[in-house]
Amino acid sequence: MNDEPQRIRGKRIALLVEEQFDDPELTEVAEILKSHGATVVMVGPTAPTVFHGQRGTTITSDLAASRIKSEDLDALIIPGGFAPDKMRMRHAMVDLVRDSVTAGKTVGAICHGAQLLISAKSVSGRQITCWPSIAVDIKNAGGLYMDRPVIVDENIITSRKSDDIPAFADAIVKALRSQQDS
Amino acid sequence: MNDEPQRIRGKRIALLVEEQFDDPELTEVAEILKSHGATVVMVGPTAPTVFHGQRGTTITSDLAASRIKSEDLDALIIPGGFAPDKMRMRHAMVDLVRDSVTAGKTVGAICHGAQLLISAKSVSGRQITCWPSIAVDIKNAGGLYMDRPVIVDENIITSRKSDDIPAFADAIVKALRSQQDS
Repeated sequence: MNDEPQRIRGKRIALLVEEQFDDPELTEVAEILKSHGATVVMVGPTAPTVFHGQRGTTITSDLAASRIKSEDLDALIIPGGFAPDKMRMRHAMVDLVRDSVTAGKTVGAICHGAQLLISAKSVSGRQITCWPSIAVDIKNAGGLYMDRPVIVDENIITSRKSDDIPAFADAIVKALRSQQDS
Repeated sequence: MNDEPQRIRGKRIALLVEEQFDDPELTEVAEILKSHGATVVMVGPTAPTVFHGQRGTTITSDLAASRIKSEDLDALIIPGGFAPDKMRMRHAMVDLVRDSVTAGKTVGAICHGAQLLISAKSVSGRQITCWPSIAVDIKNAGGLYMDRPVIVDENIITSRKSDDIPAFADAIVKALRSQQDS
């Protein structure tokens, strides 16, 4: 058990950030992944830039989305809040999500984060959960919506809301461990 | 010219309201319609309830959506902001939009307001404009998205953003006048 936190050490995980992110969906997820030994990189539309959470947290981006490629990453996480509505209009962020999904990287989206999966054309035929207001958009995009705390469909991991953070982070850690084991 | 403002007098227009509405898209549109003689009713998920705009305006709802029927209205307007994301989860609001569209009432949606049209299954085959982040959702719902200040497709009138308010309100007033003329 003692070496478990080591097992995703060296994994490089991008967390996407934009204005009005859901605070715990970014910060708590980042803390859990770091506690497991992963390297977390905050990726914004620009960097270094200060972004504000809906509840007042500030995060400074480490890298601009245009400066990073999916091959540099082991996983990419999209938090919720109203940030995904803004990320959808950032071509480099949409491209990074699409490329990461296509390359088989672990891609996690929580709450409204699934809106970015829609913009990245990554939803069709996939089992997806999300904040209920956008379930209709997931279905219209060809996704198979289900109301569950977390859904793992191959490399796409989705959750509904901040209450689901423990299950969401656990599924991401497990996916990264199985990458290492394979 | 002097009697022009009278020409929509007596028309009853519902403006939908929820938390985080775009302030001018609710208040300026309401003022323009009132200045033309219309009766404006603020319709929330509950009433009387105080709702807050993204820029600090407060609006108290006059009526709950469950207490009003499309036959009581001449037009229904959906403002933008993040309010439509919340309205989508209010069944009575979704039903009121769908019933109003089906009944041939003038239905206006600006900015993110078109999200509620998607939830009301009122987009398929219609020419629609909206805030660009949700254009993909409009297309996935079968809508014909175009980037224009205002689009009138039969009884559905849509605009992109608060800059379009003059064109949006003008199209609504014209639609109500033509109802009266017919």
